Amino acid sequence: MKFKVKDMDIATGGIQVCVLNWQDAQALDLHLMDRIKISKGKKSTIAVLDIAESNKPLSLGQVGLMEEVLKRLNIRQGDQVSLSLAEKPKSISLIKKKLNGKKLDPDELRIIVDDIVDNKLTQIEITYFVAGSYTHGLSIDETVALTKAMINTGQKLELKEHPIVDKHCIGGVPGNRTTLLVVPILVAAGYTVPKTSSRSITSPAGTADTMEVIADVILPISKIKKVVTKTGGCMVWGGAVNLAPADDKIINVEHPLSIDAEGQLLASILAKKGSVSATHVLIDIPVGRGAKVKTLKKAVHLEKAFRKVAKKLGMKIKVVITDGSQPIGNGIGPALEARDVLWVLRNDPHAPQDLKNKALLMAGHIMNSWPLNKEHKKRGFYKAKEILESGQAYEKFLEIVSAQGKKQTDPENIKLGKLTYDVKAKTRGKVRYIDNLSIARIAKAAGAPSDKGAGIYLYKHVSDKVKKGETLFTIYAENKQRMKYAKELLNIYGAYVVS
Amino acid sequence: MKFKVKDMDIATGGIQVCVLNWQDAQALDLHLMDRIKISKGKKSTIAVLDIAESNKPLSLGQVGLMEEVLKRLNIRQGDQVSLSLAEKPKSISLIKKKLNGKKLDPDELRIIVDDIVDNKLTQIEITYFVAGSYTHGLSIDETVALTKAMINTGQKLELKEHPIVDKHCIGGVPGNRTTLLVVPILVAAGYTVPKTSSRSITSPAGTADTMEVIADVILPISKIKKVVTKTGGCMVWGGAVNLAPADDKIINVEHPLSIDAEGQLLASILAKKGSVSATHVLIDIPVGRGAKVKTLKKAVHLEKAFRKVAKKLGMKIKVVITDGSQPIGNGIGPALEARDVLWVLRNDPHAPQDLKNKALLMAGHIMNSWPLNKEHKKRGFYKAKEILESGQAYEKFLEIVSAQGKKQTDPENIKLGKLTYDVKAKTRGKVRYIDNLSIARIAKAAGAPSDKGAGIYLYKHVSDKVKKGETLFTIYAENKQRMKYAKELLNIYGAYVVS
Repeated sequence: MKFKVKDMDIATGGIQVCVLNWQDAQALDLHLMDRIKISKGKKSTIAVLDIAESNKPLSLGQVGLMEEVLKRLNIRQGDQVSLSLAEKPKSISLIKKKLNGKKLDPDELRIIVDDIVDNKLTQIEITYFVAGSYTHGLSIDETVALTKAMINTGQKLELKEHPIVDKHCIGGVPGNRTTLLVVPILVAAGYTVPKTSSRSITSPAGTADTMEVIADVILPISKIKKVVTKTGGCMVWGGAVNLAPADDKIINVEHPLSIDAEGQLLASILAKKGSVSATHVLIDIPVGRGAKVKTLKKAVHLEKAFRKVAKKLGMKIKVVITDGSQPIGNGIGPALEARDVLWVLRNDPHAPQDLKNKALLMAGHIMNSWPLNKEHKKRGFYKAKEILESGQAYEKFLEIVSAQGKKQTDPENIKLGKLTYDVKAKTRGKVRYIDNLSIARIAKAAGAPSDKGAGIYLYKHVSDKVKKGETLFTIYAENKQRMKYAKELLNIYGAYVVS
Repeated sequence: MKFKVKDMDIATGGIQVCVLNWQDAQALDLHLMDRIKISKGKKSTIAVLDIAESNKPLSLGQVGLMEEVLKRLNIRQGDQVSLSLAEKPKSISLIKKKLNGKKLDPDELRIIVDDIVDNKLTQIEITYFVAGSYTHGLSIDETVALTKAMINTGQKLELKEHPIVDKHCIGGVPGNRTTLLVVPILVAAGYTVPKTSSRSITSPAGTADTMEVIADVILPISKIKKVVTKTGGCMVWGGAVNLAPADDKIINVEHPLSIDAEGQLLASILAKKGSVSATHVLIDIPVGRGAKVKTLKKAVHLEKAFRKVAKKLGMKIKVVITDGSQPIGNGIGPALEARDVLWVLRNDPHAPQDLKNKALLMAGHIMNSWPLNKEHKKRGFYKAKEILESGQAYEKFLEIVSAQGKKQTDPENIKLGKLTYDVKAKTRGKVRYIDNLSIARIAKAAGAPSDKGAGIYLYKHVSDKVKKGETLFTIYAENKQRMKYAKELLNIYGAYVVS
């Protein structure tokens, strides 16, 4: 069938799409998401069919093409192309197999991940893959195969050092910016730590958002390799490099329903670690009412699954279950968290002790588990403390920051939101509970993480005594509208329970 | 947040969509398929967020809007609008509930169906609903509630006659155009039969495609009512009226993976029947290698499920399991099938006896099960035969055709494809097997159903003796390219087994 090209002036940024008027589609017996072979002379490509339900965009005999298709075939508006029905990719029958409750072997998972990365599958088809993996679960072997497939379809940071250490926190706890302390401590102790972090997905700040206040975090993979080779570590944004790209596309379709498929969570985390050649990984699972993992039972279950998968991947793993019942550190939001981190590194009296202690605990666990020398063995915590308090960690931190591109390392010069609002205790008593989710919501309403200086600074933690009228926390915002919005949420959700 | 409107010059034909540059979305912490409230002055509406991964369509500070949103807010290119995050519809948490294996109550299913019909859910979200219903199944109560919700969210043909008879065939058998015979027989016998049919979805012709050769089938509901009130029946295209519209949107997302969710199949069929006020329904389940239902076991299972659901809907139902192992009738494709139907109605010597017999069997079952008078009781088949062979059925058929809008009722004047190709037996023997799927594929390749005159005419059925070189079937096409394509498929798939 011959059709006239209409340039839709849209790029999908991924999958190749063509659009037909619904009457043409019906006449040709073509259906939504059919694969269509589009040919012009000797060139051809395969696109997924979208159908225009209204007559506005396309008249009969026209095929609308997205930028990706126009480029591939080197054609433009008004050109004539031939359309014919193409076979669906093999991955579709494999996705159906999973949806039917059958197990997939490594080759089959590899085919699916390949097609996801190559933009051959629509979001609906990926959704069925997620739904099948979620309702039937992924076995340990499937999770291992998925992880390997994810690693192999992305960029890799190839490093020859041994051991290469990495850490990951399951999240859900505001503040909790231990990574930016653990990395310099470990690197100062002699470990190689090529740390890539994410930006915020649902929190007021991700590690990459916070680090970005202090240094550049968007580095090409060649530059990351140079930084790690030179300094022993890095703290960069993983999203800037194409590590395990299937993961993002899977997360995209999980988001609308907040699907939390365990197998995909494990694969997602371990694939990012595998992509940077990590050989030894510490996983922090905070547990508590407001954390992502709410019960100890679930945490222990996750720990076991992590161990099984890591073992089959040939990765050493140590899982630590920590207290996730309240925020850790005082600052919440990129700038406020960055200031906390610098205060701890500089042994400043403002340094939040809970954040410092948790970081030492994490670093200590790694040294105990995988000691580089006698000093680390069984007394990792004390060795980590020594490295931090002697200033060695700060020195290493500055070295990494300077290699990545320094922005600001003086905590007193970090720009916070101009507008502040103090939230005061309405009664005297003790802080009984701080709600992680409310704190996160208020900080986000105030502008975090897009407004770097926005967020919350806590003056009181759980079990602290408070007087009536004493400030519990301060909200920071960069503009009035955001502050108004934060106050509205404060009124709806509260945040502290004092009694 | 203020944004400048860009007119995307696209209509989705349903759901309201807005698009942001990925950098804006990231800065605002907005995610794919978040609900965005778009306000201009006092007017506001909620749209689903799409994110442009490339920088081409949208610059920073621009929001791309589809036609539906522009119309709703009465705005245009360059206007300023405010964007804020809106709550997701409640149906999303209910869909997740189903995905988690929980049962949904009638109110919950109604909320989901409402949101599907109101274009409040994205295809990804509807996909999760289908996936959850497919992997966990729908209980009888859920299926009943889904059916009711589908009926209540669409147009209805309100009729007061009793009984109102309908029939449905599960499909998969080429030809098999019994509906166009059963309806006039039953109406002539005194039944009210407001038959709405579908067009082809995957077959060479749907009943509506075939009927369209003979009469108009696109009628508004008010006209359908007039036809039924005047003549006692109709044979129209259901897609032209908005019966159970949720069904089409569900089928759209089932198609990419060819998902066949039993609960949704039952609800889909019975909702269409309920929408035309049917009180008595005959379901034909053809069984055979090439049919949609492949085993007797599956057919019996379906029969039970149909009975249970219909009972709770207060609908009388009769399920007939029939032979679906080969095409029924000789013509395949709209015009060829229409000619068969007219030949049977006119008692022409060309009339295919298998089609005639099956139609009499169906009509007879209905008369036996729900007799209007003593004559029907226990001898429905003979009464049906009498009505058909006496010409009463043909007379009624012409009356209905004329009420709908006559096109062509002379079988010799029906236009068939100009190009023909005879497929001949390569050996003498008996026809052992005719492959439904191959026959359907070849007929579709030849142009059916969009080319009304294209298709296949069978000269031999299973068990017929053939001589070497005798014509097994003829392919009809309206143009050379289609004929070439049909021959290519013929070479790949074959169609007949003679030995």
